[in-house]
Amino acid sequence: MAQDMTLLWGSGSPPCWRVMITLEEKNLQGYNSKMLAFEKMEHKSQAVMNINPRGQLPSFKHGSNVVNESCGACLYLESQFKSQGTKLIPDCPAEQALMYQRMFESLTLGQKMGDVIYYNWKFPEGERHDSAVKRNKENLITELKLWEGYLQKASGSFVAGKDFSLADIIFFPGVAYLFHFGLCEERYPKLAAYYNCLKVRPSIKASWPPTWLENPKAQDMLKDF
Amino acid sequence: MAQDMTLLWGSGSPPCWRVMITLEEKNLQGYNSKMLAFEKMEHKSQAVMNINPRGQLPSFKHGSNVVNESCGACLYLESQFKSQGTKLIPDCPAEQALMYQRMFESLTLGQKMGDVIYYNWKFPEGERHDSAVKRNKENLITELKLWEGYLQKASGSFVAGKDFSLADIIFFPGVAYLFHFGLCEERYPKLAAYYNCLKVRPSIKASWPPTWLENPKAQDMLKDF
Repeated sequence: MAQDMTLLWGSGSPPCWRVMITLEEKNLQGYNSKMLAFEKMEHKSQAVMNINPRGQLPSFKHGSNVVNESCGACLYLESQFKSQGTKLIPDCPAEQALMYQRMFESLTLGQKMGDVIYYNWKFPEGERHDSAVKRNKENLITELKLWEGYLQKASGSFVAGKDFSLADIIFFPGVAYLFHFGLCEERYPKLAAYYNCLKVRPSIKASWPPTWLENPKAQDMLKDF
Repeated sequence: MAQDMTLLWGSGSPPCWRVMITLEEKNLQGYNSKMLAFEKMEHKSQAVMNINPRGQLPSFKHGSNVVNESCGACLYLESQFKSQGTKLIPDCPAEQALMYQRMFESLTLGQKMGDVIYYNWKFPEGERHDSAVKRNKENLITELKLWEGYLQKASGSFVAGKDFSLADIIFFPGVAYLFHFGLCEERYPKLAAYYNCLKVRPSIKASWPPTWLENPKAQDMLKDF
């Protein structure tokens, strides 16, 4: 039981989901979990600001130790509970190298996805350009094809080898987000196979965004990608 | 001696510099080092593409293990050479939590810095707006003030406590970049003190960008920030 841990999170946020999957994989159920609503601006509430001066989710605390950055929280939990639950960083140097490489490349996928999905949110109307929308789309498609190729050559069901690892924890929520926003499974068969394989993993099922359960495919923004 | 390692890098690139500082701190001098010129598009050369399909620097190889993502390469090197050179990840849970938090927050500083410095490079002329330039400037200033506050409250000379750590390796090259681009030392006294303290550290001096030695303050883009 992890009663000395608190996680403030928002449904559907890939960074929040990463920390939730890690907590499940490390058998750290029973933490204080509080779902907040971005649309009500609860990520700017005092409860969040007390832990996280950036007013962002996730906000995570273990005793008096704060790690709000999602990749940092996952690395911290793996380090603090190394021998508990799933081993998330392989010992074998070759596997470890690939694990770190894919883990951090996943952040680039997240950025390119964000450039498309949050375009209207990021830029006020007078600053929007069709040429930028087109470029962001092309960049995301290039990125998706790169990952499709990685998975084509992968030696197992996971993104960095034969075992589930931290790379999957960072990568999977982004992949789920893409399909939630309408990405075509037929056009990206390896990404779709990966998604369908991992979505039934207990840690992932247990932490599935509750708002997605109510509304399984909210938007088709990516259907032509 | 690290003759089984190859690093392809570009002068002044914060991600490249991180890996170079890590190699110095872990006593891994003697690696195959090749400086490439971004302005000659050498990061898109075959030598790079063979290691790194993204055509980016750094590109790093240890034996047949490739880790091009800078944070990944630093974590890999610390893990593979844990007991050699400087210990870069503290054992103490509280120190470790802060280390991971500041390490990943540094990536946000890098993004906000990039939004300002690379604005004209990222957006073609017809897509540029004074309102965006103003917003990017405000965002970077807010970010700088946050870090100035962190350093004000810090318990030592380093960004995450009393010892040099991986957080400094990720953070410092960005700070050096800011001052190289003209940030005012008087306006950010804590950042300036941090910069002046660390710039004489042997690992950092040994890996100082050669193009900066020739041209110590290239631009004053940030002088009014």
